[in-house]
Amino acid sequence: MTTYNAPLKDMQFVLNDVLQLSKYSNLPSFSEASEDVVEAILEEGAKMTSNVLHPLNQVGDKEGCTRHPDGSVTTPTGFKEAYEIYKQGGWQGLSFDPDYGGQGLPYVLAVAVSEMVSAANMAFGMYGGLARGAADAIHAHGTDEQKQKYLPNMIAGEWGGTMNLTEPHCGTDLGLLRTKAVPNGDGSYKISGTKIFISAGEHDLTDNIIHLVLARIEGAPEGVKGISLFIVPKFLINEDGSNGERNGVSCGSIEEKMGIHGNATCVLNYDEATGYLLGEENKGLRAMFTMMNEARLGVGMQGMAISEVAYQNGAAYAKDRLQGRALTGPEAPEKPADPIIVHPDVRRMLMDQRAFTEGARAWMYWSALYGDLHKHAEDETTRQKADDYMGLMTPILKSYLTEKGYWHATNAQQILGGHGYISEWGMEQFVRDARIAMIYEGANGIQALDLVGRKLMKDGGRAWQTYFAEIDQFISDNQGDEELKPFLDGLEKAKAQTLEATQWFGANAMTNFNNAGASSMDYLSLFALTCLAYSWAMMAKAAIAKKDSGDDFYKNKLITGRYFLDRMLPDTGMHLEKIKAGADTMMALPEEAF
Amino acid sequence: MTTYNAPLKDMQFVLNDVLQLSKYSNLPSFSEASEDVVEAILEEGAKMTSNVLHPLNQVGDKEGCTRHPDGSVTTPTGFKEAYEIYKQGGWQGLSFDPDYGGQGLPYVLAVAVSEMVSAANMAFGMYGGLARGAADAIHAHGTDEQKQKYLPNMIAGEWGGTMNLTEPHCGTDLGLLRTKAVPNGDGSYKISGTKIFISAGEHDLTDNIIHLVLARIEGAPEGVKGISLFIVPKFLINEDGSNGERNGVSCGSIEEKMGIHGNATCVLNYDEATGYLLGEENKGLRAMFTMMNEARLGVGMQGMAISEVAYQNGAAYAKDRLQGRALTGPEAPEKPADPIIVHPDVRRMLMDQRAFTEGARAWMYWSALYGDLHKHAEDETTRQKADDYMGLMTPILKSYLTEKGYWHATNAQQILGGHGYISEWGMEQFVRDARIAMIYEGANGIQALDLVGRKLMKDGGRAWQTYFAEIDQFISDNQGDEELKPFLDGLEKAKAQTLEATQWFGANAMTNFNNAGASSMDYLSLFALTCLAYSWAMMAKAAIAKKDSGDDFYKNKLITGRYFLDRMLPDTGMHLEKIKAGADTMMALPEEAF
Repeated sequence: MTTYNAPLKDMQFVLNDVLQLSKYSNLPSFSEASEDVVEAILEEGAKMTSNVLHPLNQVGDKEGCTRHPDGSVTTPTGFKEAYEIYKQGGWQGLSFDPDYGGQGLPYVLAVAVSEMVSAANMAFGMYGGLARGAADAIHAHGTDEQKQKYLPNMIAGEWGGTMNLTEPHCGTDLGLLRTKAVPNGDGSYKISGTKIFISAGEHDLTDNIIHLVLARIEGAPEGVKGISLFIVPKFLINEDGSNGERNGVSCGSIEEKMGIHGNATCVLNYDEATGYLLGEENKGLRAMFTMMNEARLGVGMQGMAISEVAYQNGAAYAKDRLQGRALTGPEAPEKPADPIIVHPDVRRMLMDQRAFTEGARAWMYWSALYGDLHKHAEDETTRQKADDYMGLMTPILKSYLTEKGYWHATNAQQILGGHGYISEWGMEQFVRDARIAMIYEGANGIQALDLVGRKLMKDGGRAWQTYFAEIDQFISDNQGDEELKPFLDGLEKAKAQTLEATQWFGANAMTNFNNAGASSMDYLSLFALTCLAYSWAMMAKAAIAKKDSGDDFYKNKLITGRYFLDRMLPDTGMHLEKIKAGADTMMALPEEAF
Repeated sequence: MTTYNAPLKDMQFVLNDVLQLSKYSNLPSFSEASEDVVEAILEEGAKMTSNVLHPLNQVGDKEGCTRHPDGSVTTPTGFKEAYEIYKQGGWQGLSFDPDYGGQGLPYVLAVAVSEMVSAANMAFGMYGGLARGAADAIHAHGTDEQKQKYLPNMIAGEWGGTMNLTEPHCGTDLGLLRTKAVPNGDGSYKISGTKIFISAGEHDLTDNIIHLVLARIEGAPEGVKGISLFIVPKFLINEDGSNGERNGVSCGSIEEKMGIHGNATCVLNYDEATGYLLGEENKGLRAMFTMMNEARLGVGMQGMAISEVAYQNGAAYAKDRLQGRALTGPEAPEKPADPIIVHPDVRRMLMDQRAFTEGARAWMYWSALYGDLHKHAEDETTRQKADDYMGLMTPILKSYLTEKGYWHATNAQQILGGHGYISEWGMEQFVRDARIAMIYEGANGIQALDLVGRKLMKDGGRAWQTYFAEIDQFISDNQGDEELKPFLDGLEKAKAQTLEATQWFGANAMTNFNNAGASSMDYLSLFALTCLAYSWAMMAKAAIAKKDSGDDFYKNKLITGRYFLDRMLPDTGMHLEKIKAGADTMMALPEEAF
């Protein structure tokens, strides 16, 4: 009942007008990514996601995945056929290293495509997304032999992939994990233990699944310093590259959960399964984090993407549903009532979603571009800056976009009134699906702690200082443009408040670490609003440059941007006030009072 | 897997120490409600809700209701037996008129019990809640004969009741409704039409169901001025009061929906069903609103109640789950990790829930007490004030408590990490159940419009002026208490900001009605924060008075109150800033741009 149409014009506006990808055509990846090629790829992606993936979204939710007595798992009706189309289209390897069969296109373009996939069918998209994450980790940490063995099939979409961290007694605190690895003497290991919450852990879309598993080698140090990462294929790979013997990993059950029913969330039992060390012994967490960072950006994208598809369906209903009259007098007097989009409070919800989603898209793509620059920029300074930015932005994007994405999906559901609560209308699924993104890949509270406890202080604060200096530069470079002024003013104020909060941490968090934790989430939100304000300032600049084109798109972009300034940016002062309240009342109650 | 224990001490604190019910013992209802009686009733209610209703909460969600080919509906396993216990306990008629078999106890006490029922099993509670609402409407608008005929069985819990407003093409805009009533000539009518989203519309808990149905008498004026209210029993009532012939109303289907699966949400088909006019012809909406106002308070209570039960389960997990170490050093060094309640961001979520729920409880009970005073106060001035307050508070309580209740349930779910997303843990059900409360009984946006468009201006603003004057008086009466000072300061600031916003409406909403609509939701939230600040100030005063009792309860109450001031009240300034932004950017985009 829901529909999805990729917002191509908005995507291209960000890629072409705001980020100006053509400026980077001297860099590897980008040389092939002319405006025409990008347009063609996005259009193909739009067709696939609208016509193939989205029609299965509600089917997937309703049917869910089925585990059979032999431990095999079938995905919902249609998923297998859709996966074939996805695979044949080469979508899985869009930005991957051509040495292993990828197309070597920019990461930022792959991120735009992943937006479409997540919006159209989040549960489906996770199968490919996790395999891509696993391939990235193998690419970064594998031996040449491992890369040759696994990557071509993973990149081609022939094999799936997973990440296995969580165990029943440990999620966030991986130091507690118990899965064991015992050397076989031939370089391989016997892996034994139970992993839970493994997304895409078992399914029928691919011939093999390459599990990446954190485990502790016998005799390794306790805690996080004794954790190694292993490649554990579902089927062992024969010398000729074909699938061989079934390995000792099996799906014990799949979880009944709130949403993403189309993706199998598995308990995986490892019973002396053969595994191969990936990267260095006892440095498994570091290797896993290669995968986690990209996965976290992907999860942030899910938040934004669900907000987009929910917005589209909320807006369509608001234009269609006739109920009541505009406060300022009938707007459709020939009809029994006006469409509810005439009501300011309905507009408020739609504009909130829109101002958020458009701002978040620009911010996310901007960040993804730094992912490309980190790999491909010619000078070390830019590569360094790009690495700093990616580290800084990852927790903020993951947490803020998933929290707001959920909230905006909830508001889109609200627009439908009672119908929003009924399953067949599809809006409540968006809310249930969006909910997981606040939890997995590190719960949002952990992201906030990563930000204030690690990313802010790293290298003496170089990342945020560089970012703030860039904002200052942007503001000073663009003085004098009257139409841009409110955007620059809003950005300047938000940045100043974020700086004040950063300095507050400097003064208060060292003497009491709880002050850092207590204010971490408000700080993350404050920082996020500054990033959105910067994104909106950049978009406004690009829109102003084109506003005489006669295309209302640019005028509307500026209106939406001013709405952001009026109705979303005022949150900054509130966050700053809460940050400065610190930990005192938060931590004062004795545990037994709860 | 979840548990619920009614927070008796908190409830009694509000009833005895804050509201001081004993002061009202000269009034009807209250004369029987001594502190001992209240305590005994609450303790019994706590037992029933913890031991009988809550254990069925997850069962109800998992099984849902079943419609059979003959149109009959069975409730989930155990609901029928539980309903018998509920009925035998006399819970349905707690505050109802003794002339019809009620116990005539204060409404505020019934509201406290309804908190327990909604927290323990919201879907179950709706069966009794809707019957009570229907009984209230018959009590207020029925003839003596109608009251004698229906009320005793409804009050005894023998018969159910429903409210039938919504039709497929109209929910909010009842002027569009089409259900027809044709006079039979004997004073009765033939009712024909389709009603949707009828909670508790058909079930097996009671022998009969008394439907209250809005319909249009043949030849009645168009729009809302031609709507009448009818009593349509599922079984017609014989002369001797027994159930007679089956009436022409049947359940066409039950909805698959996001939550409250234990309650049957029905499509009801009326096919020349016999109905009896309730109240005056064409004045059906007014009569229905008797029922709606109380129902709206009940829905606000659902929001608060779900927040309470979610908090209890989130807190229990936070004390039990071992993961990571406190930022300030290990707190349980003998264990492999500390309980996650040591982490400030976990505390933040718990304290948010707690500060909200405790404040909301005091506010809700305070409002319910005015429900009693409206009926029973000896002087007209108090009755008038009580009526004003109830009118003013109803939309604010309904909207703010359901929105925040949902949000806090979401945060309680977050505390469980991945487990929060898994059905068997029960936390995601709280979120799904809580979600409906923002929608039904008038979507929250409609409540905000009711507040700014109707309640603020009514009688020249007498209601809010009286309320603000009461706050001023409270502040001036309590000057000089240093411990209370931060509460008075916070209250004064919030009130001043709300007053400023009210004056902004005066200056801007008349010239452009869209300004009223555009800022209605932020205004409602701002007003709500003032009400919570007043509630916290009253609680703080009562806690300070008892803090030398040696019971940490009072000390902890003050800590929680200061947390409210530090971490929740700062939202006021943000809302005020958004309010003043008005409608301009919100309404600027052309409809086709969406």
